[in-house]
Amino acid sequence: MGVILRGGIIVTAVDYYKADIRMEGEKVIAIGEGIALPEDHILDVEGCFLLPGGVDVHTHFDLPVGNTVTADDFSSGTQGAIIGGTTTVVDYATQFKGQTLKEALMAWHAKARGKNYTDYGFHMAISDWNDDIAEEICWLSKSAGVTSIKLYMAYKNVLQVNDDILFKAFTKGKQHGVLVCVHCENGDMIYNLVNQYRSQGNVTPYYHSLSRPIIAEEEAVTRVIAIAQAAQSQVYIVHLSSNLALQVVMKAKAKGNKVYAETCPQYLLLDESYYNHSFESTKYVISPPLRQKENQDFLWRGLSNRILDVVATDHCSFNFNGQKDAGLQDFSMIPNGIPGVENRLSLLYTYGVVPGKISMNTFVNVTATQPAKIFGLFPRKGTIAPGSDADIVVWDTNHTFVIRAETQYQRVDYTPYEGLQQKGKARHVFLRGRQVVHHGKLCDVNPHGIYLPRQGIR
Amino acid sequence: MGVILRGGIIVTAVDYYKADIRMEGEKVIAIGEGIALPEDHILDVEGCFLLPGGVDVHTHFDLPVGNTVTADDFSSGTQGAIIGGTTTVVDYATQFKGQTLKEALMAWHAKARGKNYTDYGFHMAISDWNDDIAEEICWLSKSAGVTSIKLYMAYKNVLQVNDDILFKAFTKGKQHGVLVCVHCENGDMIYNLVNQYRSQGNVTPYYHSLSRPIIAEEEAVTRVIAIAQAAQSQVYIVHLSSNLALQVVMKAKAKGNKVYAETCPQYLLLDESYYNHSFESTKYVISPPLRQKENQDFLWRGLSNRILDVVATDHCSFNFNGQKDAGLQDFSMIPNGIPGVENRLSLLYTYGVVPGKISMNTFVNVTATQPAKIFGLFPRKGTIAPGSDADIVVWDTNHTFVIRAETQYQRVDYTPYEGLQQKGKARHVFLRGRQVVHHGKLCDVNPHGIYLPRQGIR
Amino acid sequence: MGVILRGGIIVTAVDYYKADIRMEGEKVIAIGEGIALPEDHILDVEGCFLLPGGVDVHTHFDLPVGNTVTADDFSSGTQGAIIGGTTTVVDYATQFKGQTLKEALMAWHAKARGKNYTDYGFHMAISDWNDDIAEEICWLSKSAGVTSIKLYMAYKNVLQVNDDILFKAFTKGKQHGVLVCVHCENGDMIYNLVNQYRSQGNVTPYYHSLSRPIIAEEEAVTRVIAIAQAAQSQVYIVHLSSNLALQVVMKAKAKGNKVYAETCPQYLLLDESYYNHSFESTKYVISPPLRQKENQDFLWRGLSNRILDVVATDHCSFNFNGQKDAGLQDFSMIPNGIPGVENRLSLLYTYGVVPGKISMNTFVNVTATQPAKIFGLFPRKGTIAPGSDADIVVWDTNHTFVIRAETQYQRVDYTPYEGLQQKGKARHVFLRGRQVVHHGKLCDVNPHGIYLPRQGIR
Amino acid sequence: MGVILRGGIIVTAVDYYKADIRMEGEKVIAIGEGIALPEDHILDVEGCFLLPGGVDVHTHFDLPVGNTVTADDFSSGTQGAIIGGTTTVVDYATQFKGQTLKEALMAWHAKARGKNYTDYGFHMAISDWNDDIAEEICWLSKSAGVTSIKLYMAYKNVLQVNDDILFKAFTKGKQHGVLVCVHCENGDMIYNLVNQYRSQGNVTPYYHSLSRPIIAEEEAVTRVIAIAQAAQSQVYIVHLSSNLALQVVMKAKAKGNKVYAETCPQYLLLDESYYNHSFESTKYVISPPLRQKENQDFLWRGLSNRILDVVATDHCSFNFNGQKDAGLQDFSMIPNGIPGVENRLSLLYTYGVVPGKISMNTFVNVTATQPAKIFGLFPRKGTIAPGSDADIVVWDTNHTFVIRAETQYQRVDYTPYEGLQQKGKARHVFLRGRQVVHHGKLCDVNPHGIYLPRQGIR
Repeated sequence: MGVILRGGIIVTAVDYYKADIRMEGEKVIAIGEGIALPEDHILDVEGCFLLPGGVDVHTHFDLPVGNTVTADDFSSGTQGAIIGGTTTVVDYATQFKGQTLKEALMAWHAKARGKNYTDYGFHMAISDWNDDIAEEICWLSKSAGVTSIKLYMAYKNVLQVNDDILFKAFTKGKQHGVLVCVHCENGDMIYNLVNQYRSQGNVTPYYHSLSRPIIAEEEAVTRVIAIAQAAQSQVYIVHLSSNLALQVVMKAKAKGNKVYAETCPQYLLLDESYYNHSFESTKYVISPPLRQKENQDFLWRGLSNRILDVVATDHCSFNFNGQKDAGLQDFSMIPNGIPGVENRLSLLYTYGVVPGKISMNTFVNVTATQPAKIFGLFPRKGTIAPGSDADIVVWDTNHTFVIRAETQYQRVDYTPYEGLQQKGKARHVFLRGRQVVHHGKLCDVNPHGIYLPRQGIR
Repeated sequence: MGVILRGGIIVTAVDYYKADIRMEGEKVIAIGEGIALPEDHILDVEGCFLLPGGVDVHTHFDLPVGNTVTADDFSSGTQGAIIGGTTTVVDYATQFKGQTLKEALMAWHAKARGKNYTDYGFHMAISDWNDDIAEEICWLSKSAGVTSIKLYMAYKNVLQVNDDILFKAFTKGKQHGVLVCVHCENGDMIYNLVNQYRSQGNVTPYYHSLSRPIIAEEEAVTRVIAIAQAAQSQVYIVHLSSNLALQVVMKAKAKGNKVYAETCPQYLLLDESYYNHSFESTKYVISPPLRQKENQDFLWRGLSNRILDVVATDHCSFNFNGQKDAGLQDFSMIPNGIPGVENRLSLLYTYGVVPGKISMNTFVNVTATQPAKIFGLFPRKGTIAPGSDADIVVWDTNHTFVIRAETQYQRVDYTPYEGLQQKGKARHVFLRGRQVVHHGKLCDVNPHGIYLPRQGIR
Repeated sequence: MGVILRGGIIVTAVDYYKADIRMEGEKVIAIGEGIALPEDHILDVEGCFLLPGGVDVHTHFDLPVGNTVTADDFSSGTQGAIIGGTTTVVDYATQFKGQTLKEALMAWHAKARGKNYTDYGFHMAISDWNDDIAEEICWLSKSAGVTSIKLYMAYKNVLQVNDDILFKAFTKGKQHGVLVCVHCENGDMIYNLVNQYRSQGNVTPYYHSLSRPIIAEEEAVTRVIAIAQAAQSQVYIVHLSSNLALQVVMKAKAKGNKVYAETCPQYLLLDESYYNHSFESTKYVISPPLRQKENQDFLWRGLSNRILDVVATDHCSFNFNGQKDAGLQDFSMIPNGIPGVENRLSLLYTYGVVPGKISMNTFVNVTATQPAKIFGLFPRKGTIAPGSDADIVVWDTNHTFVIRAETQYQRVDYTPYEGLQQKGKARHVFLRGRQVVHHGKLCDVNPHGIYLPRQGIR
Repeated sequence: MGVILRGGIIVTAVDYYKADIRMEGEKVIAIGEGIALPEDHILDVEGCFLLPGGVDVHTHFDLPVGNTVTADDFSSGTQGAIIGGTTTVVDYATQFKGQTLKEALMAWHAKARGKNYTDYGFHMAISDWNDDIAEEICWLSKSAGVTSIKLYMAYKNVLQVNDDILFKAFTKGKQHGVLVCVHCENGDMIYNLVNQYRSQGNVTPYYHSLSRPIIAEEEAVTRVIAIAQAAQSQVYIVHLSSNLALQVVMKAKAKGNKVYAETCPQYLLLDESYYNHSFESTKYVISPPLRQKENQDFLWRGLSNRILDVVATDHCSFNFNGQKDAGLQDFSMIPNGIPGVENRLSLLYTYGVVPGKISMNTFVNVTATQPAKIFGLFPRKGTIAPGSDADIVVWDTNHTFVIRAETQYQRVDYTPYEGLQQKGKARHVFLRGRQVVHHGKLCDVNPHGIYLPRQGIR
């Protein structure tokens, strides 16, 4: 017995057409007319868009940071995700100093196992590179299904790596089909600016922003592309935030460098003026910081022109009370990060598709198709086609609602998008053929997400 | 009764998956598993790619030029097209001095009617703009299904228009949903250079190339984008040939200008060294001319990065004997143009996909999907999806052959691609559900192509 | 008997040192210590800068425009100039429709003869190019001492020339050592925008600015550089007003194109907000129009970096009452132009040197040295060196004053710089060894300026 | 009693005129006509150019490198310099690991004292930065007359510093009027490439070039400008070698960054093809390496357009026999550097001025005026003006000669310019009023050079 979705408009990264979808088991079986079998269950989705389930390739669930831990774990985080129309997350497993990659990965599997409402994969964020770690890259890709790693050019004395390690990582990555993701900000520059501001007594959250100027991002993006080029490797830039960094990516792509770039809803929608809300400014402390508003149009255009490949959330939630507010007297003590895994699709639809900044095809492309392609999940994830997983979002464009911390599934005491009116919501969500969201509510209390080993990157 | 294509790999601009296609009547009805009805005819296409029929949006069939006429008419031209896997052409109907657009269009309908082996639409190339013509633009779009016009910045005293007319055309185009296509070379610059070379006795075809330097193209592309911006309109640049012009397009797209750009196989594959083949150089005389080889990599990359949107042929064939050779003693007397409508897909596959310069998805995107989208034919044409026309190419990647003038369907006595070994060929071609090519040969001697009124452009 | 200037600091485009200057007859004879002869007159200039007399290469005196004529003639104009420290002007003689260049030049000699308080040369602005005119270029350069011409890309149906004429002018210019100066705005674009605004009833001076957007300048600058390149010629861009146009010049220079660019005090100091002063906005109507304030920093930097070569005034004065105000009801009827020949040096000193935007060397370079070099007057003009004309400005940096229409020498009823506090003024001015300004006042009522035939340009 | 130079043409960075020069004591006293006193000695220099003595701000004399030392010490090095028309050198005193800056400087004074045929100053190259060293910067500038330091972004594990140190150095430099000079190549990138090539057995000098690709320079130039911007400091880039790096400098200058850039004769004249001369390739091993020939035109243009400020030599000589040849079996063992302090002026004149790539003014500007201005020696050095040191080169444009190792004053067994025909030579050279070169030969066997404490940088 299968399920027929009838009357919706299927949207992929390129197509837009009205047709029935037939799911059976975990897969999409057929699309078109006259495909229903007698026993099939028919669900009327007239007037809705049928989208491939969203793929959010940048989350941090259950992540220890300093002496605290993120507010969301895999359970609450993936509940938020699925309610918002995201059916797959790729979370950053993180190696801490002294750990092997295997130890780190096992720890992350332990955190995640049995808790996921979406399917999930892992990247591996590396904070302690050495020759032994380099040797584990092969295992990571070939045996563990983790085909991407992350390195940080910022966070001096904590996570930051130098160019030597970047070069070696690119070389290893290329050898074993592993994509190297990089946090691009010049950590030495930031370290000095932070110290300058603090020594001058400038400690409000506003100085968080000043201590991480765009030039720190532009420089790091330029550098990492250069190193990847010298190592004849590709590179994926996480959370690009500014027009100047975007221009660097654009020129690199035009030159033939193999560069992918991701941005996040916060950089598309929020701006540095939020750091003036003195009391609540800590809520918006992220790295890179929010930028001047004029950057936003360039980022939207970058999505539209495919200079930017992916919109992910960098969901990394801390409660305002008891976590974020620890840094009210010193911006350098604020845990960096904001929630958002729940809001990605509705934000992009409301502020991108509705005003015409991006097309429906681009909307699907950057939230599902490209992330799945880049990270070795396509065509299982990221499209609606026979043979793909039946991860389908029935998107109701007439459903308006307001984002509120008090009603969110994410387990964090605020949202940076508080009060924003949304147009468009996931009415139903299917995860590998099973309906998990029904009329905007979680309809199955059990987590059915499975681990996704990912294909190596060419 | 329908037809089932079984065992092939469906490729669209974004997807790549194995599934059956069911066609009935003129349409694709369903895709997937278990969609065959008992009475359906099943065609085994195991191991082949199933591509949306190619859309060539730049042809000149049966075009009078000076006191001669192109070698191919709509019959031979579209036979070449369909054999090569192109199921739709959009030909440039041309208004001559003194004609109304309606007269020009009727003349083109008369040339084309009953002769087409592919479906076809028309652009309108305008050589005599005035206030009355401006008024006809509305009719053209709303009543005649012609939603694109072309203007020339080159060919001084013949087709060239000034910036005033360009501005007015953009304004009218915007008003009536008509896309303005522009031949971008600075005609005044070329006019003076041609005269300089001729006055110096430099008359071999080589000087055709020197008299049309890249700066003439780069300048015109820059200018037309500026005028479109001032008129708040979009613009489509035909046959872009050089890296410098490409850079202009890239920067304009990044700035948010609405610019589309097309290149052609000749610019991707041939170079200015062909003008040194003294006797045969006239065969390669086109405008813009072939460029230095180093431009080609940038153009391929432009396709891959979506800076270039379309590959069309600018098919405009003249026989070497009796037409091209008229200019052996004076390059300015050579009728400009080359054939190629038959070779577009195999050339792009062989030199783009096989060596990895472009992906299969990009191959489909630039030869079918984007041209259909830009010119108001999507989703009827340009994709394989339920509801779309069943224009399907069964692409056999194991079929190798050599391009030869003597075996081509195009009715012209040479080919610029003579002797090139091709990997990949259209084994079968379906036009709106009807098989018209069978094992690489035309299997239906009757022309079944129909006229396609096109949707207005937003 | 000579004159010794003692105690000042000599500033040239590169040097800065304290030394005596000895003038005798019309020339600087010696510089240094121990150069005074017993009978010499010694003038104490302790604490002042000694600058080469300013060279303003863009003025329009006694110019008929429509059915009016500029407020300043050569007498009042050059009185303003010399008071302000400018000892040489190069005025735009203008050929009107139907005139030969010789007729036009004779007319300008007649206007100027016997009236000049500064030395003077002529450019030739050409409004009616044809083959006969082209033939006169040789005479102009070789016999008449006019080694620069100007063409307009704007003012459709009045002064505007097309690219064909530009190409031919560059070719002729190169042949005869004549530099082609160009007013760079796309006239066709502007013509259509003006008509659009007027047809919408948008007729206030503010729409003057909207109808001449930066893209019109950027486009024209790009184009004229391209045409000059194709013609293998150099080009001089008058009154560059915007950062985007500046970027074009910068890239062209880096590529090796031979391009010179001039800006004016009005673009460095005033901005488009002046078009909001409803009643008085007409006072600021010039072409190109005033731009957004953010352009100014780029222009200052362009001077500092030598991307911009010259600051000239484009002095073209019309009274507000009876001339400018004619366009209060229709911006297109306002005669374009503002006064300023009197204020160039003090404005640049006050707003450039004092706040450190440009050095003293750059100040001299762009107001005297480069204009003299580019236009064939160096080393006679533009520097302080033995053998050069003794055109010397004793610049008193402690003299502050306020610009007022009522106290100016220019014969026009307003000044766009009304009320601006100036720091620095010409205390004394010597023209070819003769003192003509004494303590800021004209001390010789007779005009002693002579005509300067200029050397051909290489 | 003074000396009169009569009949020459004085050339400065901006002027070009015929006049007498009167020197007395160590200074230029007067310039012009009628300045000779009865007892003055008159030297006829008819037909020669009178140039300010050259200033070479990049030499390495008596420098220990690995377990060898450069072939030239201060005696032979400055003999070469003065014969070639250079009257001032600024040598890189070098701090070795463990030394204080004071110790390093004293060591350099000891090497130099009493041996110099030119005047000399010191930069301080720092290889061991720490907080104590940072504190010495103030002393260096205020008490020791050393107002520039150098840091290296290359030479991993030897001289290379990270971005943290660069930031701190810029901050200190800004505070104390010290200009930070930087060797811009990404050392980590190079380190990995060197290891890759060596591990593959690719050890010929050719791989020296491949292991230091242009991207390593372009990246480092971009980065150092970014860091200087964040630290609100200026920066001086030594030995820029490639067009891509030049473009970075150009854009930074246009943006308003305070960046100076130096190139060297070797990058203007030699190219990577020299690494194919298998046996002799080691002679050309320098860092950055010689580049593809196409870079040279851009560098020449950069001088002409003032994007490049200085031509210095980076003179660092090693004998081929016994020093350079040590690396015949492993390029990484070759001591990097070439001689050239003797040849700078004749090379630039012959290959720059004679073919018209740069003007005489630019020739003087980049070899004397700008280096003196940037490094705090102007107007004492770098120009010919009353009050300046009488360092004057009588340049004989009719003197042709051939560069030969066997006839050079430099004490090294080869020259990279062997056999090059030179047009133009220093006939006489005056150092602070004393003639030290007479008809191309050293005419005073005693070294008269003095140490030049330099002014702080603003």
